[in-house]
Amino acid sequence: MSAASLICDLGREFYRLGWATGTGGGICIREGEAVTIAPSGVQKERMTPEQMFTLSIDGTIISRPADPSLRPSECTTLFMAAIRHRQAGAVIHSHSINAMLATLLFEREFEISDLEMIKGIEGMSYHDRLVVPIIENTARECDLAVSLEAAIVAYPRTQAVLVRRHGVYVWGRDWQQAKTQAECYDYLFRAAVEIRKLEGAVDASLSSRPAESRVRR
Amino acid sequence: MSAASLICDLGREFYRLGWATGTGGGICIREGEAVTIAPSGVQKERMTPEQMFTLSIDGTIISRPADPSLRPSECTTLFMAAIRHRQAGAVIHSHSINAMLATLLFEREFEISDLEMIKGIEGMSYHDRLVVPIIENTARECDLAVSLEAAIVAYPRTQAVLVRRHGVYVWGRDWQQAKTQAECYDYLFRAAVEIRKLEGAVDASLSSRPAESRVRR
Amino acid sequence: MSAASLICDLGREFYRLGWATGTGGGICIREGEAVTIAPSGVQKERMTPEQMFTLSIDGTIISRPADPSLRPSECTTLFMAAIRHRQAGAVIHSHSINAMLATLLFEREFEISDLEMIKGIEGMSYHDRLVVPIIENTARECDLAVSLEAAIVAYPRTQAVLVRRHGVYVWGRDWQQAKTQAECYDYLFRAAVEIRKLEGAVDASLSSRPAESRVRR
Amino acid sequence: MSAASLICDLGREFYRLGWATGTGGGICIREGEAVTIAPSGVQKERMTPEQMFTLSIDGTIISRPADPSLRPSECTTLFMAAIRHRQAGAVIHSHSINAMLATLLFEREFEISDLEMIKGIEGMSYHDRLVVPIIENTARECDLAVSLEAAIVAYPRTQAVLVRRHGVYVWGRDWQQAKTQAECYDYLFRAAVEIRKLEGAVDASLSSRPAESRVRR
Repeated sequence: MSAASLICDLGREFYRLGWATGTGGGICIREGEAVTIAPSGVQKERMTPEQMFTLSIDGTIISRPADPSLRPSECTTLFMAAIRHRQAGAVIHSHSINAMLATLLFEREFEISDLEMIKGIEGMSYHDRLVVPIIENTARECDLAVSLEAAIVAYPRTQAVLVRRHGVYVWGRDWQQAKTQAECYDYLFRAAVEIRKLEGAVDASLSSRPAESRVRR
Repeated sequence: MSAASLICDLGREFYRLGWATGTGGGICIREGEAVTIAPSGVQKERMTPEQMFTLSIDGTIISRPADPSLRPSECTTLFMAAIRHRQAGAVIHSHSINAMLATLLFEREFEISDLEMIKGIEGMSYHDRLVVPIIENTARECDLAVSLEAAIVAYPRTQAVLVRRHGVYVWGRDWQQAKTQAECYDYLFRAAVEIRKLEGAVDASLSSRPAESRVRR
Repeated sequence: MSAASLICDLGREFYRLGWATGTGGGICIREGEAVTIAPSGVQKERMTPEQMFTLSIDGTIISRPADPSLRPSECTTLFMAAIRHRQAGAVIHSHSINAMLATLLFEREFEISDLEMIKGIEGMSYHDRLVVPIIENTARECDLAVSLEAAIVAYPRTQAVLVRRHGVYVWGRDWQQAKTQAECYDYLFRAAVEIRKLEGAVDASLSSRPAESRVRR
Repeated sequence: MSAASLICDLGREFYRLGWATGTGGGICIREGEAVTIAPSGVQKERMTPEQMFTLSIDGTIISRPADPSLRPSECTTLFMAAIRHRQAGAVIHSHSINAMLATLLFEREFEISDLEMIKGIEGMSYHDRLVVPIIENTARECDLAVSLEAAIVAYPRTQAVLVRRHGVYVWGRDWQQAKTQAECYDYLFRAAVEIRKLEGAVDASLSSRPAESRVRR
C-alpha cells in the first residue's frame, strides 16, 4: 500500500478512535527524504490518496494535489521537528480526549509507572517511570513548533510530547511503531484518568494495594 | 453523491456515534433554495434515498417520497430557522448524551475556553470564550421553534443552540462544516462533563494547574 | 428480509452495542401466530438464519434447525409473556451494562422524567414520569417468567421490565418499535447513571439548575 | 475457517474491543496436539494467516511463517500452561482496561457475585461467588509462567487469571467458550469498576438496595 493510501486508511481508523474528529489530528509518513502529508482542514475519515502532499524534509513541496484550494496540514512544521531530531518514519497527532484530560492532571510532565502497556514504548520496561513532557498550547498550531522542538531536545528518551488542553504528538521509526506507540500512550493517558476517578471516589479501599505499585504523581 | 444519499450515509454515522438512536436526531442539507430532509420517526441508520423529502426554504414540499405514510421530520421548522437566519447549508440535530449532560451543568449558557477543539468553531480561537445558549425543552419539538429562533438572533456568533435535557442543533455553511462543528461541539460537551467528574473527585490536585486555564463556569 | 435473517442482522448490531455479549441477550420476532427465535447459548453476532426456531405462541415448535444440538433460547417463555399480554410483534432482551447499573440505583421502580428520549416510548410525553418495574433476578432464566408476567400485568403502560443485576426486556408492536424503544430505554438508563456520577461529585453546582428539572427519585 | 484465519478474524475483533491495542493481547487455538499461535509484536488487527506458527503442546515448532524475522508470541509459555493443566482448546490474553482497573480494586482475588453474567462462566450460577486470582506482573511476560501456573493449580475452578496492572488470561474448551467467557469476565470487571464509581459518589442511596445483593469485597 502506498503511503498516500495508508494515510487515508489510518485516517479512517483514527477518526473511529476519536483521535481525529472535527478535521483535527493527523499522520505523516516518511520514505527516505520524502514525507507524505495530508491537507489542512479536511475530514480525516474521508480523505483520498489524490489529496496528499509530498514534501522534502526541509519543507519544500515535491508534489501537491490537483485541487488548488488545498494547503499542507498545519502540523507540518511540528511533524518535521520529530522527523529531523528523531529520524522518525511517521508522526501521529491525536486529539484524543484521553490525552487532553491527562494534561489536566499533571503540571509539567505526565508520569506513570508499573503498567504493562509502558512496555510498548521504545526503550521502556514495566517498572520504569514513563515521562511525557507537557508543553503549553498556543493560539496557532504553527507557534507550537519552538516549544515542541525544545521538549524533544530536553527529553531525549521520549517518543511523545503532550500539548496542554489540546492533544499529543507521537512518533516512531516507521508507521507501525508510531501507531503502536500512539495506542500505548493513549491507553496510559486513559488509565491515569480512570485511576484518578476511582481514587477520588474510594481512597481507602484503593490504598489497600501495595504503596509501591500505585501511580506516582 | 446526492444530498439524499449523503443524508442516509451520515445517518448511519450519526447513529454509530450515539447522536441518532431511537429514531432521534437528524440532518438536512440545502442546495440553493431546495432543502433535502428526512422523514419523521424512522430509524436514522436504515434510511434510503427514496424516503427523502425536498422542501423550499419557506417550507413548501417540492417533492415527497412515494410512501404516503411518511411525513417530513419534526425538526423541519427548527432546521429552517437556522437556514433562514444564518444561510446554513446544513443543519444537524444530535441527541448525543454529551450534549444532554452538558445542559445539566450550566444555567443559561454553556461556556468553555482554552481547549484546542474550540478552534474548530467558525470565528473562534483558542483563548476565546465559547458560549452556546441553552433553551428550555418543550413537550412538542415544533414548539421549540420560537425560542430557538430567539436564541439564534440573541447570539449572532453562535453556530449551535443547546436544548435542555434534549440535545443540540448545529449548523454550518455546508454539510462538511456543519459536521465538523458538530464533532467539535460534541467533544467540548464531553470534555466539560469529564472535567466536572475529575474536579469532583480530586479538587486539590486539579487546582495545581494554572487558574486561568481552568474551565470557567 | 426474512425474520430469520433480520434476527441475525440485529444480533450483530446488539453485540456491537454491548447488549448481547457472552451469548447473552437476544430478540424474537412474531409474524401472525409464528414466532422466530434464536437458539440458546450461541454467539449472537455469528448466528445464521438456518439456526433459527419457529414456535407458535403457545410454545409449540413449528420448525427447528437441522443441528440437533440446538435448543430454543432460554428467554422463550419470557418472550412469550410479552407477546401474549401485549400482542408484541418483537421482544428484545438486553444485557446492556447501562440497564444493569440502573437497577442498582432504584429499589422497585426505575423512574425518570423530563428527558427528550422519554418521548420515544409509546404513550409517553416529555414531562411524564417514566416508570419501569424492576423484578428480582433468579438463578435460572426460565424462573423469571412468573414475576415478569406479574410486572407486565401490574404496569399496564410499561413497554419494558428491568431485571435486577441482569438486564432488561423491551417489546413493541413490531421489530422497529421494539428496537427504537430499546434504544430509548438504554439511553435513559445510561443518563440516570451518568447524572448520578455527576451529582455525587458536584452536588452544589448541579443544584443551580431549576429544582423541577432534576431527575426525580 | 482454519485456525489461522480465525485468529486473524478474532484479532480484528479484540482490537476493536480494546483488548489488543499496541500489539498487546492475543489468542491461540489448539486442534488436537497442534497449537496455532500468532507472532510476537505485530499489530493484532492486521495479521494474515501466513504469519501464524504451529507448535506442539510441549512448545516445539511444527511449522513457522516464511518471514524469518517473526518469533512466536511472548505469551506462548503462558498459553501452554492453560492448555496443559486445563486441556484448554483456546486461550485469550486481553489488555482490556477493564481487567487492568479491576486488579487495582482487589488485593489477591477479584470477587463478585449476584450478577447475571456470572452464569456465562463454566460451572458458575447466579448466586455463586466468582473468584479470579490476581498474580503480580513481572518485567518480562515469560517470567509470569511460574505464578500463572501456580494460580491455575491453586484455583481449580477458575477459567481466568488476572495479572496486576496488566490484563487477564482466559481459556475455554474451544474458541467459542474461551471467547464467551472472556466477554463475560470483561463485563464483570467493568461492572466492578462502575459500581465502585457509583458507590464513591452516592453511598447513601446505593445502600437502599438489599445488603445481600451488594458486590462483596
